[in-house]
Amino acid sequence: MVNIMYDIGILVIGHGSKLPYNKEIVESIAENIQKKHDTRVQTAYMSMNEPSIEDGLKILAATGVKKIVAVPAFLANGVHTLKDIPGILGVETVGTKTTILIDGVQIELCYAGPIGAEECIADIVFKRVQETL
Amino acid sequence: MVNIMYDIGILVIGHGSKLPYNKEIVESIAENIQKKHDTRVQTAYMSMNEPSIEDGLKILAATGVKKIVAVPAFLANGVHTLKDIPGILGVETVGTKTTILIDGVQIELCYAGPIGAEECIADIVFKRVQETL
Repeated sequence: MVNIMYDIGILVIGHGSKLPYNKEIVESIAENIQKKHDTRVQTAYMSMNEPSIEDGLKILAATGVKKIVAVPAFLANGVHTLKDIPGILGVETVGTKTTILIDGVQIELCYAGPIGAEECIADIVFKRVQETL
Repeated sequence: MVNIMYDIGILVIGHGSKLPYNKEIVESIAENIQKKHDTRVQTAYMSMNEPSIEDGLKILAATGVKKIVAVPAFLANGVHTLKDIPGILGVETVGTKTTILIDGVQIELCYAGPIGAEECIADIVFKRVQETL
């Protein structure tokens, strides 16, 4: 049986930016997940920030996890989540699983969907509006 | 006194995409806000989708609102929210207010911040991970 605390690593993938804000949010998401669920969580970036997706996978693999779930910290699916990131990961598309070889070790890789249209997103956007009034 | 139901219009600004998913999410955010708070809400897109930000402002102004709050449906601040969108709106940066003239009518324009690092974002990202297990 797979133990979510020890056997699974979560790779939270951000867009990356020349400015610090995208990285701050991706790190905050990863920290919140790590604190709340006591899982192995690693950040990685599609572009402009470090670690790269390839390096993020290697860092997680080195911890001995059996399975990695890569999840895009993106609001919606688009070319980045449907083409660019799956291309780097070597998975077909969102929701698909594959087995990859990292430093000689076989690891199951799942690719999760983006944030999407959850009600709390609208609540936050409305809160931002109220903050200006 | 300003009445949030009649005097304020909310312009939810999305990135825009050649694929339908960004537009779907921006529309869902706008619908959720409209249903929950009974305010005037209009979507607009920085690029690739319609209406443009300029057209979104005109549509809201035509409803007779006195104030428009433009809010970016972006996860984090970056070049788009700090340069591109303020440039189109004619505001200095996030959190600033100005007065604009739309079709001869003076309207107060406020520019709100992006979604940012709220705890519920990490909860959704973790839910996406769990959905793959």
